[in-house]
This record gives sequence, structure tokens and C-alpha cells, in this order.
Amino acid sequence: MKVYEFNGLPNPARVRIALAEKGLTEKVEFISVDVPNGEHRQPEFLAKNPLGAVPVLELEDGTTISECTAITEYLDHITGEITLTGRTPKERATIHMMQRRAESGLLDAGTTYFHHATPGLGPDLETYQCAEWGQHQRQKAVSGMHYFNEVLAKQDYLAGEQFSMADITAFAGLAFADFAKIDIPVECGHLQAWRERVSQRPSISG
Amino acid sequence: MKVYEFNGLPNPARVRIALAEKGLTEKVEFISVDVPNGEHRQPEFLAKNPLGAVPVLELEDGTTISECTAITEYLDHITGEITLTGRTPKERATIHMMQRRAESGLLDAGTTYFHHATPGLGPDLETYQCAEWGQHQRQKAVSGMHYFNEVLAKQDYLAGEQFSMADITAFAGLAFADFAKIDIPVECGHLQAWRERVSQRPSISG
Ligand SMILES: N[C@@H](CCC(=O)N[C@@H](CS)C(=O)NCC(=O)O)C(=O)O
Ligand SMILES: N[C@@H](CCC(=O)N[C@@H](CS)C(=O)NCC(=O)O)C(=O)O
Repeated sequence: MKVYEFNGLPNPARVRIALAEKGLTEKVEFISVDVPNGEHRQPEFLAKNPLGAVPVLELEDGTTISECTAITEYLDHITGEITLTGRTPKERATIHMMQRRAESGLLDAGTTYFHHATPGLGPDLETYQCAEWGQHQRQKAVSGMHYFNEVLAKQDYLAGEQFSMADITAFAGLAFADFAKIDIPVECGHLQAWRERVSQRPSISG
Repeated sequence: MKVYEFNGLPNPARVRIALAEKGLTEKVEFISVDVPNGEHRQPEFLAKNPLGAVPVLELEDGTTISECTAITEYLDHITGEITLTGRTPKERATIHMMQRRAESGLLDAGTTYFHHATPGLGPDLETYQCAEWGQHQRQKAVSGMHYFNEVLAKQDYLAGEQFSMADITAFAGLAFADFAKIDIPVECGHLQAWRERVSQRPSISG
């Protein structure tokens, strides 16, 4: 398997964590796509992901999979035991729900702020910006932090008592928030404690 | 099981189709939430979905699941055979990828246009609008139609030769586009043919 990515970006980080959680990192060849210089918008890469975004997983048969949720579903199902996406119907549902909330309310909100209300990747790549929407998404990310803080007051992980794909998304969301200078509100102690706990997992600290 | 919804809205329609595909419609009690009058923003409903959106699936034990993907994962896994979300790792990955593309590039793009660049649900409910972003999302929906038209030139359904959750999302996206007066470009014949084919499924034609 190959993973097309650019190290340091938040969505590729999700796949790196999922690979490490599944013990698959050594099975993958990482191929760096020069996102800062727009290589992801060239025809060669667009053939792999028409949306022009990393990461992309390429299987041995040439099939290309984009979207971190889809890649994580794949990785979680090719190993013996399902650990990230849920074993029972109820677990699957809860994980997918919380994953989506973490994506829209934290990670995507933060990256939209960055791309629209800051210089983002610079004038060559940010060909359309809507600063007002970007600022609105910044507020959404802060609301998301408050929401997940409440969730984590009652349980250890986003989808219950087990680490899952939802935690990976939220963790990447907070890492990106640091980068984009969206501070975690001081009153979000449960979120901070969860982040500390998650950051000690070998897939992240390791 | 209970489904909180408001009939006629595009996301509830996705769950209605999934239920019918799985032969589960009769097993569900549908509870109408008065979205046009803001009942989904009242504390009683926010306790079921803090994002204030329908549909929500409520299980017998009181667990509430929002997000159509999560609800569909649940419904697809409680019946004997998996038919909507993929049986093999590669099928699962492809379906989740195409589902997400249909969501962001068609359905969510169309609803964002509606809520931001038209009167939407009216002044009482549309408390924040960003018309410029709404117009940009309209263009994104039209690009989405072109993209899916290309996909459907080569295969019968969004994720390959089988109907899946991805088709449900895209079908709801086109139904909403009609409602929001975002026309399918005339040159998108493959998309039109797919729509015609999908609309003849008993889960949709009734
Ligand atoms: N929803 C996608 C998001 C992918 C994405 O937006 N990737 C960013 C890097 S973190 C990217 O490639 N951006 C390129 C650009 O904005 O031009 C996923 O789950 O992978
Ligand atoms: N991503 C969500 C979207 C849910 C959603 O936006 N539902 C709409 C109805 S189609 C809603 O309840 N809107 C209420 C509002 O905008 O105030 C899902 O998959 O269910």
C-alpha cells in the first residue's frame, strides 16, 4: 500500500495515527506530495483524488481511496480485529456520529478558518477566500471545543469508554487548532485531560 | 426504534430510503419534529441531538444517533445481510469515500446555498447567513453534478456496480437541488439516467 500525503498536515496525521494503531505503518510506502507548491492540483495527482487533497491510500491493485474515514474503515477491516470503527451496530453508529461531529465541528471548522480568514497556504493556492465565513467557522471550532469538553466530562473517549476513529479526528482537530492559533478555552479541562491521555498512546507519542 | 424527522427534508429522506432498503420501515415509529417552527432548537430535542438537526434515530435503550451515515451504518448492521455500506474492506472504503463526496459536493453544498443565499427557512430560523459563501456552495453543487456525471459514465452506481449508501446521499442531494432550483446541467446525461434508475427502486418509488 502507498499513502500520498504531506507530513505535518492534519488529515494525513489522522491516517498516520490509524496506521500506527493498527500496526500497519511498516507496511506502507509514504509518498510526499508537495502541497505547498501545488503538486496536489496537477493532473497526475488529481487522477488519484479529483478533489485535490491528501491523504490518498493506494492499494496494490491501483484503487485509490481518499477521505480519512474511508481510509480508516479500510485499515480497520484488513487486520484481524476491529478496534477503531466499532464491533457492534451500536458502537459503529456512535463512532461514526462522533467522528462526523469532530470533523464538522472541530477539524473542518478549523481548516476552513485557516484557508478563508488567514493567508492560509498563500495567494497562489488560496484562489478563493471568504473571510466572513472563515471567522464564523473559527467560532464553530470554539463551540466544538465546549461541546466535546461536556462529552468528556462524562466519559473517557468521544464515543464512550474506548478510543476510536472519532478521537483521532478530534485529536487532529486540536493539533490544527494550535497551529491556527485557536486556543482551547481554559474552562475546557476535560478536553485538555483527554488530549493529554490520547497523546500518550504509542500511536502518537511513539 | 423511533426516528425523529420532518417529512420532506432531504436528510430525513436518506434515512427513509435506508429503512425501506433494509425492510425496516414497519419497525420504526416516526415522530415529527416541527422544524419550520423551530422545535428542533428547543431543549427537549437538543437533548437528543445537540446540533439541532433531524433525523435522529432513538434505540430501545434510549441511545440517540444522529448523522445519516451513522444511522445507515446501524440499520445496515442489524439485519442479516450488509447491503448498503459494503461487505469487503475495499467496498466499505469506496462507499464511504463516495458517500462523503456526495455529501460535501452535492447535498451539503445545496443545503448551504439554500440556508445562506436564499431566504431559507425564514428570518426566525436563519439567524446567521453568509450569502457569498452560499453562492460559492451553489457552484460547488453544480461542479459536483459534473463530477458524478463523469463517474456514472463508467459505472452504474456511485461506488461501483452496486447501489449503496453513496447513491442514497447523492439522490437526496439531487432532490434537494430541484427544490432549491439548482438545475442539473443538460450535458449531465449519465447523472440523469442514474437518477431515473435509482428512482425506480421500490425503496423510493414506494
Ligand atoms: N475530508 C478530507 C480532507 C482532506 C484535506 O482537506 N486535506 C488537506 C490537507 S490537511 C489538503 O490536501 N488540502 C489541500 C488544499 O487545500 O489545497 C479527508 O478526510 O481526507
Ligand atoms: N449531516 C447531518 C445533516 C442534518 C441536517 O442538516 N438536517 C436538516 C434537515 S435536512 C435540519 O435539521 N436542519 C435544521 C436547521 O437547519 O435548523 C445528517 O447527516 O443528518
